[in-house]
Amino acid sequence: MTASTELTIKAGIVGATGYTGVELLRLLGAHPNVHIHAVTSRTEQGMPVAEMFPNLRGHVDAVFKTPDEAKLDECDVVFFATPHGVAMHEARALLDKGVKIIDLAADFRLQDASVFEQWYKQEHACPDVLREAVYGLVELHRQRIRHARVVANPGCYPVTVLLGLAPLFQDTPLIDAQHIIADCKSGVSGAGRKASLGTLFAESSDNFKAYGVGGHRHHPEISEQLQLLNQGQPVGLTFVPHLVPMIRGMFSTLYVRVRPEAMDTDFQALYEQHYAEEPFVDVLPAGAWPETRSVRGSNMLRIALQRSTQDDLLVILVAQDNFVKGAAGQAVQNMNLMFGLEEGCGLEQIALLP
Amino acid sequence: MTASTELTIKAGIVGATGYTGVELLRLLGAHPNVHIHAVTSRTEQGMPVAEMFPNLRGHVDAVFKTPDEAKLDECDVVFFATPHGVAMHEARALLDKGVKIIDLAADFRLQDASVFEQWYKQEHACPDVLREAVYGLVELHRQRIRHARVVANPGCYPVTVLLGLAPLFQDTPLIDAQHIIADCKSGVSGAGRKASLGTLFAESSDNFKAYGVGGHRHHPEISEQLQLLNQGQPVGLTFVPHLVPMIRGMFSTLYVRVRPEAMDTDFQALYEQHYAEEPFVDVLPAGAWPETRSVRGSNMLRIALQRSTQDDLLVILVAQDNFVKGAAGQAVQNMNLMFGLEEGCGLEQIALLP
Amino acid sequence: MTASTELTIKAGIVGATGYTGVELLRLLGAHPNVHIHAVTSRTEQGMPVAEMFPNLRGHVDAVFKTPDEAKLDECDVVFFATPHGVAMHEARALLDKGVKIIDLAADFRLQDASVFEQWYKQEHACPDVLREAVYGLVELHRQRIRHARVVANPGCYPVTVLLGLAPLFQDTPLIDAQHIIADCKSGVSGAGRKASLGTLFAESSDNFKAYGVGGHRHHPEISEQLQLLNQGQPVGLTFVPHLVPMIRGMFSTLYVRVRPEAMDTDFQALYEQHYAEEPFVDVLPAGAWPETRSVRGSNMLRIALQRSTQDDLLVILVAQDNFVKGAAGQAVQNMNLMFGLEEGCGLEQIALLP
Amino acid sequence: MTASTELTIKAGIVGATGYTGVELLRLLGAHPNVHIHAVTSRTEQGMPVAEMFPNLRGHVDAVFKTPDEAKLDECDVVFFATPHGVAMHEARALLDKGVKIIDLAADFRLQDASVFEQWYKQEHACPDVLREAVYGLVELHRQRIRHARVVANPGCYPVTVLLGLAPLFQDTPLIDAQHIIADCKSGVSGAGRKASLGTLFAESSDNFKAYGVGGHRHHPEISEQLQLLNQGQPVGLTFVPHLVPMIRGMFSTLYVRVRPEAMDTDFQALYEQHYAEEPFVDVLPAGAWPETRSVRGSNMLRIALQRSTQDDLLVILVAQDNFVKGAAGQAVQNMNLMFGLEEGCGLEQIALLP
Repeated sequence: MTASTELTIKAGIVGATGYTGVELLRLLGAHPNVHIHAVTSRTEQGMPVAEMFPNLRGHVDAVFKTPDEAKLDECDVVFFATPHGVAMHEARALLDKGVKIIDLAADFRLQDASVFEQWYKQEHACPDVLREAVYGLVELHRQRIRHARVVANPGCYPVTVLLGLAPLFQDTPLIDAQHIIADCKSGVSGAGRKASLGTLFAESSDNFKAYGVGGHRHHPEISEQLQLLNQGQPVGLTFVPHLVPMIRGMFSTLYVRVRPEAMDTDFQALYEQHYAEEPFVDVLPAGAWPETRSVRGSNMLRIALQRSTQDDLLVILVAQDNFVKGAAGQAVQNMNLMFGLEEGCGLEQIALLP
Repeated sequence: MTASTELTIKAGIVGATGYTGVELLRLLGAHPNVHIHAVTSRTEQGMPVAEMFPNLRGHVDAVFKTPDEAKLDECDVVFFATPHGVAMHEARALLDKGVKIIDLAADFRLQDASVFEQWYKQEHACPDVLREAVYGLVELHRQRIRHARVVANPGCYPVTVLLGLAPLFQDTPLIDAQHIIADCKSGVSGAGRKASLGTLFAESSDNFKAYGVGGHRHHPEISEQLQLLNQGQPVGLTFVPHLVPMIRGMFSTLYVRVRPEAMDTDFQALYEQHYAEEPFVDVLPAGAWPETRSVRGSNMLRIALQRSTQDDLLVILVAQDNFVKGAAGQAVQNMNLMFGLEEGCGLEQIALLP
Repeated sequence: MTASTELTIKAGIVGATGYTGVELLRLLGAHPNVHIHAVTSRTEQGMPVAEMFPNLRGHVDAVFKTPDEAKLDECDVVFFATPHGVAMHEARALLDKGVKIIDLAADFRLQDASVFEQWYKQEHACPDVLREAVYGLVELHRQRIRHARVVANPGCYPVTVLLGLAPLFQDTPLIDAQHIIADCKSGVSGAGRKASLGTLFAESSDNFKAYGVGGHRHHPEISEQLQLLNQGQPVGLTFVPHLVPMIRGMFSTLYVRVRPEAMDTDFQALYEQHYAEEPFVDVLPAGAWPETRSVRGSNMLRIALQRSTQDDLLVILVAQDNFVKGAAGQAVQNMNLMFGLEEGCGLEQIALLP
Repeated sequence: MTASTELTIKAGIVGATGYTGVELLRLLGAHPNVHIHAVTSRTEQGMPVAEMFPNLRGHVDAVFKTPDEAKLDECDVVFFATPHGVAMHEARALLDKGVKIIDLAADFRLQDASVFEQWYKQEHACPDVLREAVYGLVELHRQRIRHARVVANPGCYPVTVLLGLAPLFQDTPLIDAQHIIADCKSGVSGAGRKASLGTLFAESSDNFKAYGVGGHRHHPEISEQLQLLNQGQPVGLTFVPHLVPMIRGMFSTLYVRVRPEAMDTDFQALYEQHYAEEPFVDVLPAGAWPETRSVRGSNMLRIALQRSTQDDLLVILVAQDNFVKGAAGQAVQNMNLMFGLEEGCGLEQIALLP
């Protein structure tokens, strides 16, 4: 299962002071083909990474450097674990030096720059790079990712919704694509590692709520990709995210209406066949239901289906770890493809249960 | 807000070793018009109630008695906080002695005895009593409850779904009643106080999952009441319950499709008017969203609406404490009505936040 | 149990945007003899209090005012739920207008101003007021509190340690007062309602750690009061606080060494007698152990003792709700005494369990 | 760090339906030198292990077998992840077939069989095997473990207390060995995977309590090993375990009194030197404190020291994952030694944070 080559990839990580950053370091620090060349932070220069993230003590000996010190242009690949709007300002210079880019923020996710500008309230800094960027959801765009120089790692919610719905978009329409409902639930860590009132333990523990009900940035991202799956036709999506008092984990309950002419479809078989060869998508047997802890710390995404015989509704349940398949694990999967490694290299961790 | 009369109600509680039992005792122990006459448990005879539930130390000095010792027929009202199937065997004898009954289990919730038998796998023991029983959701059946001898306290999920949808059932149809979706989330305490693997801390903490996807006993209960609201016409309901790693609290996200002719309805105003006089239903102002902690320990249920302008979907968000408005508080509200007290007597507790 | 008089106390609350503030509002909002005259916040002027704390919707209709608008000098009592260093600047002016003061911060806790200055890094603004201030731990200073104009509400940890140890300080020494160990555990809410990294859900959930090991501000406070109990002789105290992933609750495990000549003392009887008349200290029967949930939301503090027969060690276990007996409840208890009300008025809430 | 040899160990696991069982499977399933030969359960015969523990799906394809089917005598090593009292009945037969044994229960932990009988309420079934068994705390007994046929994997609490205190037992006494206090805190999972009221989510979440205050089975185990460290002299230990609302993790706060003649000892240097070569004991730099999440899922144990200058007390803080270094990881570390592998083989996992 380990890499078949002697390849060592020099990797840089920009902005590794957040949760996707430490998760990337956990995965890259144990990856047999990766050397962590530099980890940057403007504010924490000189601090050992393992002092901020004590789980890394003894495993990652890097010290935070400023971008100037870091010599990122010597890297083979640079990961951006930064807030939105950083990667797009540095992408051109790195590409010119032959460095590949995986952005874990949103700069290259939306192919329509005007939609980006509407939702992220800033002009896109490099529309030309955006045009060549590939949306890094491996199961949808594997071939293009292999040859990409710039990969936009998808948002966490979109991974669950897109992989939960993808098998339904066949040549013959199976569902009413104008009335898709995604009721999504995320662990609190999804809000990131930054001081804020709303995600304090005392505010979010022993509590459940919806948020972003009136509009969430992942909505246009999901819609754009669903439209691609839907042969270019727009889809209608209602997306309501909720906050769950758990650290990691994401669970999406998807509701779609089956078209009258598709009522006899064996959706269980359809999904099993669709994902039969995928190493990181697990369609559960009929009657089993996923739970987020079954993927805690692992890159696996699990799907189950419930088809009522009484009506036209199909319910799809999807669970993932928001930081692994929903962020850093997906990024490593992308990297493996971009460098010709086994897709699952360094991603074999078994989930931590209980 | 306290009672205007000198009335003292002698109350008995059967089977108070579960969570609805201790919650009833918390409320009744502080109720100005209630004397706790007897608390029964076959297995715990002789144990002070406050030894099992240390929060009651100094407040409730009752000792568990066997049903024989308890002289329940001397009570004015008996609450059944028992498993399903107990109350229906004891109801007739108590009624004959003039004792009123509030059952917190399911024995009298389903008016169609055959549906009861299908879902609860037992024959109904007293169909005649069932016929006179009133479904004890105060906001739907207040007048009948005032004169009832037997009240079926509703299930916790049904309270949120029914109160979340009730204003939509007007003379002129507003929504597609055939395609209602209820994505519901409950704290783990909803599973009750009984040793079981699945609700261990180590199994259900830091985890999220769906359960009962293929069928849940609250489904027929909700459907039956929705049909009443829908002028006797059946409705189509998809109901998916989920388990949230919090102790108390219940949150339902309801999705309905607005009929083309009702697209201009001001749903916010409709809900505010519908519930304007209700002491325990709080329609939040537009733009505010409920969270379960805002009702922790209180009898209030909170509702908010989200209407997308882009499509025909209306999203309704409902939060309650599953043990108060969803069980014991509702039961006390019923009792107050049945005995002519102020409806909110003994139910003024402010929620505990944080 | 309700107040025997028709007295209505006009109360002001300064700085009610924190957790002790909302807890004070929960208690005062339901107190039969209190009218909330004003709630101040410099930053939230004009916002309804219930918008910030949705549990108060329908119960507290106050709006945050600036201190200037609030006319605090019209109050009978002003509570300071502010950061340390605020009350001492406003105390003199209020006292001159006949307003009593209860400070929930530390400004008047340490009777030695130089110790205050050492630990709180600021000069004391009103040493004269400090001299007349009474340390508001009712069980230690009840008589003086009745006549106090300024009460220093104690810190949360000190309440548990002081009440856990107080019965041991008798005329004849029972323990080695030079080697007292207090291993204390607090829920995360104790850190307050302010944005910070360390108390994020994702940082403090599913985790346990010590903090302030090298020194904590409650150490000198406990030491000063213990010295008073110890007939003016200094005591030796090791105090290690820990952070527990729960919202509320505080638990202290105290270890003391029994003097050889006191080995035959019946400590269980000693504690039971010492606290026999106290409404809010509950000495559990031998063999029962306290847990924080048994006091969640209530003003009760529970104590249990474990005496090993093999050695000279006595273990004392103490549980309280850090916001009630450890803060806002204690403050209301103080207020009741200062205004001649029943000590337990408005403090009868039964703990929320589960 | 991976194994240098081509060795493949055939491993059997008896009773793998508990938490130490699934944790062993997580570690052994990814160990480069282990083949899982059989997993037994009398009650779950025929069920795929991954159906009970969904984190193992795709990683472990074993099916539960009865002991008879399992052919455990074909194994190189058998792990007992059973309740106390099972291994001792099967040990002799396996040893006679040349199978090595690692017992994760208590059967071989106490070298004094009469103490075992007193605490575990059963006669010891094989005192002769007990005599040759080695207490499997690698850092104390590494050389003997290399040559052992039967290893008693230590209890979770003992690992923290023993490794936290071991450096203090030098030729010249440094501490008062008659007055050691161990205030220990464990995540709820420590109670095991069995249906029980007290460890339900709704009972143990948002709560803190002590338990086993009057006596805990790990007390004699710790005492026996401390006596060995103390040159055969008995020690005086007060041990109070507490339950923390987190899944995994264990934290011990140890209090010892430094002897007058040892007051100038540099304990920080002492500990750093003592553990300098240990791969799985990490002495933190002065001023840093451990937290359980820093070792979640990893085999590392972290120690920090706090020495007050004012008195004679030394505080030692120890954190571990109760299932890894405290159980299954320790067992694998023992296995590696017993079979001549690198001690850390298969134990390189980086802790999951957040």
